Amino acid sequence: MFLKRIHLLCLFSFLFAFNLSAQTYIGKQKDIDKILKNVAQFSKDVMAGDHEAIAASYTSDGKIFPNKKDILEGTAALEKYWKPGEGWKTTYHKVTPQEIRIVKKTAYDYGYYEGESQGPDGKKSQWKGKYVIVWKKVKKEWKIYLDIWNGM
Amino acid sequence: MFLKRIHLLCLFSFLFAFNLSAQTYIGKQKDIDKILKNVAQFSKDVMAGDHEAIAASYTSDGKIFPNKKDILEGTAALEKYWKPGEGWKTTYHKVTPQEIRIVKKTAYDYGYYEGESQGPDGKKSQWKGKYVIVWKKVKKEWKIYLDIWNGM
Repeated sequence: MFLKRIHLLCLFSFLFAFNLSAQTYIGKQKDIDKILKNVAQFSKDVMAGDHEAIAASYTSDGKIFPNKKDILEGTAALEKYWKPGEGWKTTYHKVTPQEIRIVKKTAYDYGYYEGESQGPDGKKSQWKGKYVIVWKKVKKEWKIYLDIWNGM
Repeated sequence: MFLKRIHLLCLFSFLFAFNLSAQTYIGKQKDIDKILKNVAQFSKDVMAGDHEAIAASYTSDGKIFPNKKDILEGTAALEKYWKPGEGWKTTYHKVTPQEIRIVKKTAYDYGYYEGESQGPDGKKSQWKGKYVIVWKKVKKEWKIYLDIWNGM
């Protein structure tokens, strides 16, 4: 009887722990897969310092909300923002969505990001934070419409 | 001819200026009105220091993304976060949505916030920033599900 309770406790602990760390994706698998692919590609583009590819992952009227700046909108402004500073490189970038929910041709997505930058002096700094993204489906492609984040 | 061009220039300038400052609300007027009412009530609750009323404007699994903290979730955590510090008061709070778009029982909303705080020493400080909110319709009521912001 006592052992049974221990087993039950283990089972519930396992389920609880599993649920806490689980990622929630709601929507057609095909759309979820496309968004997850874009999320991974975004990090690759950041690590490659390819500001044109990064800006192209947003809608033409896409908006970013960088800390201590106004809202920046449109491809030209986004390319400028994402262009790495002289001698700077993002050596690591990873985004971990906690939840993606697709509602018709819109989706929201929130989670964590982390990365490492290397400056002109060769020194590396690590950073992490959290974000909310609103995606829009434009001609079968999922593009970022709103992108806001802050540190942890 | 010259005067006509001037007139035309004035007209276009007016239309352009108007469009730049215009707010975009997409969805049933009834839903938009409810969200706008909630936005105004949120500011009133913050100025009243009513952390229970503020927390009640979120879904029961609502999440906030405060700068330099982890994601906070659920009524208890949100009440704790929104409880004013001893001797602190928000003397002014205003939220100005730039766009609200309703998609079925979800809505996204982004814009600007501004406010003024008064500390225990009586000194006042002003602040402003920008935000993205994801709303959910729960039993005919619009509640905040995701709430993220940062300064300007």
